[in-house]
Amino acid sequence: MGNDFLADFHHVATFGATENNGVERQAATAEDKLSRDWFAKFTREQGWELQTDAIGNMFALNELVPGAPYILLGSHLDSQPLGGRFDGAYGVIAGLHAAKNISEQLGQNSEQPKFNIGVVNWFNEEGGRFAPSIMGSSVFAGLMDREQMLQVQDLAGTTVSQALEAIGYLGTDAGPDVAGYAEIHIEQGRILEREGISLGAVDYSWYTQKLDVEVLGEQSHTGATAMADRHDALVAASKVILKVHDVVNRFEPESIVSSVGRMTLEPNSPIVVARRVHLVADLRAEKKQTVIEARQVLLEQIAQIAEEHEIRILVNDFDIREIQYYPEDGLELIEKVGAELGVSVRRIRTMAGHDSVAMNRIAPTVMMFIPSVDGVSHCEREFSTDDDMLTGLEALSTVGYRMVCGALSPDASNADDGDLLRDEALRSTTVSMVR
Amino acid sequence: MGNDFLADFHHVATFGATENNGVERQAATAEDKLSRDWFAKFTREQGWELQTDAIGNMFALNELVPGAPYILLGSHLDSQPLGGRFDGAYGVIAGLHAAKNISEQLGQNSEQPKFNIGVVNWFNEEGGRFAPSIMGSSVFAGLMDREQMLQVQDLAGTTVSQALEAIGYLGTDAGPDVAGYAEIHIEQGRILEREGISLGAVDYSWYTQKLDVEVLGEQSHTGATAMADRHDALVAASKVILKVHDVVNRFEPESIVSSVGRMTLEPNSPIVVARRVHLVADLRAEKKQTVIEARQVLLEQIAQIAEEHEIRILVNDFDIREIQYYPEDGLELIEKVGAELGVSVRRIRTMAGHDSVAMNRIAPTVMMFIPSVDGVSHCEREFSTDDDMLTGLEALSTVGYRMVCGALSPDASNADDGDLLRDEALRSTTVSMVR
Repeated sequence: MGNDFLADFHHVATFGATENNGVERQAATAEDKLSRDWFAKFTREQGWELQTDAIGNMFALNELVPGAPYILLGSHLDSQPLGGRFDGAYGVIAGLHAAKNISEQLGQNSEQPKFNIGVVNWFNEEGGRFAPSIMGSSVFAGLMDREQMLQVQDLAGTTVSQALEAIGYLGTDAGPDVAGYAEIHIEQGRILEREGISLGAVDYSWYTQKLDVEVLGEQSHTGATAMADRHDALVAASKVILKVHDVVNRFEPESIVSSVGRMTLEPNSPIVVARRVHLVADLRAEKKQTVIEARQVLLEQIAQIAEEHEIRILVNDFDIREIQYYPEDGLELIEKVGAELGVSVRRIRTMAGHDSVAMNRIAPTVMMFIPSVDGVSHCEREFSTDDDMLTGLEALSTVGYRMVCGALSPDASNADDGDLLRDEALRSTTVSMVR
Repeated sequence: MGNDFLADFHHVATFGATENNGVERQAATAEDKLSRDWFAKFTREQGWELQTDAIGNMFALNELVPGAPYILLGSHLDSQPLGGRFDGAYGVIAGLHAAKNISEQLGQNSEQPKFNIGVVNWFNEEGGRFAPSIMGSSVFAGLMDREQMLQVQDLAGTTVSQALEAIGYLGTDAGPDVAGYAEIHIEQGRILEREGISLGAVDYSWYTQKLDVEVLGEQSHTGATAMADRHDALVAASKVILKVHDVVNRFEPESIVSSVGRMTLEPNSPIVVARRVHLVADLRAEKKQTVIEARQVLLEQIAQIAEEHEIRILVNDFDIREIQYYPEDGLELIEKVGAELGVSVRRIRTMAGHDSVAMNRIAPTVMMFIPSVDGVSHCEREFSTDDDMLTGLEALSTVGYRMVCGALSPDASNADDGDLLRDEALRSTTVSMVR
């Protein structure tokens, strides 16, 4: 079983393979289609039913109990530009092999399944081509509007709808009723590696939010305009970027991360001082209060920068994601399975978003991590060992088996802490600093 | 005469007019075509010959002395994106009206012209769409290769050749033999305004060079990757931008300007730490030695930034333009004409590049400035008064008249100081900082 999984994993890594062992397989591209065709072929070979819904999510369904809802295993086969071959793909391929194992094991045992077993390849988890990320699972979970998402455009003006249609994966199926969801993923950090632990049981997701920052200076000549007469949007924006980077130093190490990953400037001419810079800052922390404090510090610093340069800087909160707790009985199930298999387990938070965060809102959900070498991800150097992948596959197979047999309570808690720390003022505030 | 000029000037400003009184009329666009069609129509109405050469330069030629070379007046009708309506256009339209005045005056006077009179609209002075700038006049002067320039692409992949063909201005004419060149332009700085002087006699151009800077970090996840594990190309690039901005503070005020106007980052995703930033720094100073010192300081600071972030930063010198002196007898001619007309004149350097800098290499050249309100340029707010434009037109008409009658020595000095301060090490050096 392990060899079949590894052969499939390394085969899928050839779809969109890059020179330095990574993959470039963004959502609804020709490379994404190759991985989807492979998913469909695997499904047909097992004799399972293939469904594709109207946002491009693909479901491989094995009906064991006629009419019963499904336990879904899965993740996503799309990647970041010049991304790694493990992020997402590992969870889908391990999910397919775990579902195969579970189906075979049920055929051999006398135990009666309570639910059916299925595997999902979610559309556009990465969000690199079409924003926002975690799109397919969020639409499925009713957290995003399908019609709205189908109209989202990439930078070339192609819509989600057109791109899915073009690769033949804009389906019409409804997808299954879901009784539970299990996802396995690489950690993308270095906690498991540092502690020599094989499996992470994800207990909650970090609080995350983004700041949309628009710096409005004045266009001028890079040669003729005196330095004192300029209102250089790029110089001011550079200061904002450094403040966003440095704000984490006010807090406990590893309790918050911050970054600016997207930025455009206008007119972007070598001999013109920029009039406008648009950038997105990403803040994520273990505690919501940390993000709120960091944001407040940044707003004050940004106001100072605006004053210093006599320019306007507009700041807008968006993409706010509350802390999500995974159900306690799911965590205990992972720990129990780990003990049985002789696999070391620790509870771990996720700083990254995942499809499981969306699914956790509508069904009992478990999320597991395997170690990432050097903790790097979203890059070609991303790596996890075959051994760690196989250990994870074994854990997923066993956890999935128990879930199919009804191990998780259907009303497992998945409350967020939004009610405890509700801060309505943080939602979609526009902070306008007028010079 | 003044009213005709003003009517024409404000009419041309309607081609590509923007909401805030600027123009967007980049080289070889549909808007540029409108201004070119107008130039052609003006030429035909005077009964002059129209020539268009194979890099899109347009010449309006009035032959007064059969077979003699031409005194050319002119500038450029193309603009920056969201640029001002004075930069370039003023010089072309004033040139046309001055040539008309000169032709009429010669018809009335007994004085015999030595040369013919013509007006030129140079292709792509701005360089915003097709780099490098000052393209048409540099090709005409033999400083750039025409075939190479015709293959330059804009960001959409359209070549200069295709763009000129598309608007019908890829000509086959040779253009005139040139005995002298005169250009009038807005100052784009605030020296004339500050001192209350009407006319600048440009004595030399500043030393300018650019630095191509490539910052090579490592792509990673904005959420999952610990701050300590990142090699964020954008954070390092932001520090470079601030160093470029601050380096001028080491020198006398207004003796050097610096800026970063162009910058791109990859992959430019909101949830990915940037792996690569490419930017262009522009350094310009009164003295070559100032740029050499500033560059040396920057190279040391950039090496420190690379070390601090454990990334590579590659720096490459390009677009080096030596100081160009305008001929002394041209400066004296402007001063003499100013005295006769009762117009205040001062000598002034140009920090910006101009078509006259290229023409100064092949023919006796004079360059004049009129005041810019608030010293701003390359933006919609760029402004000069009708009175100042009319004063400039009168000066250009008189200077041009004298040049047509042979006022300037054909071997007027136009040496650069390159031989005095030659620094071969500065040319196209690649500075590689390996982590």
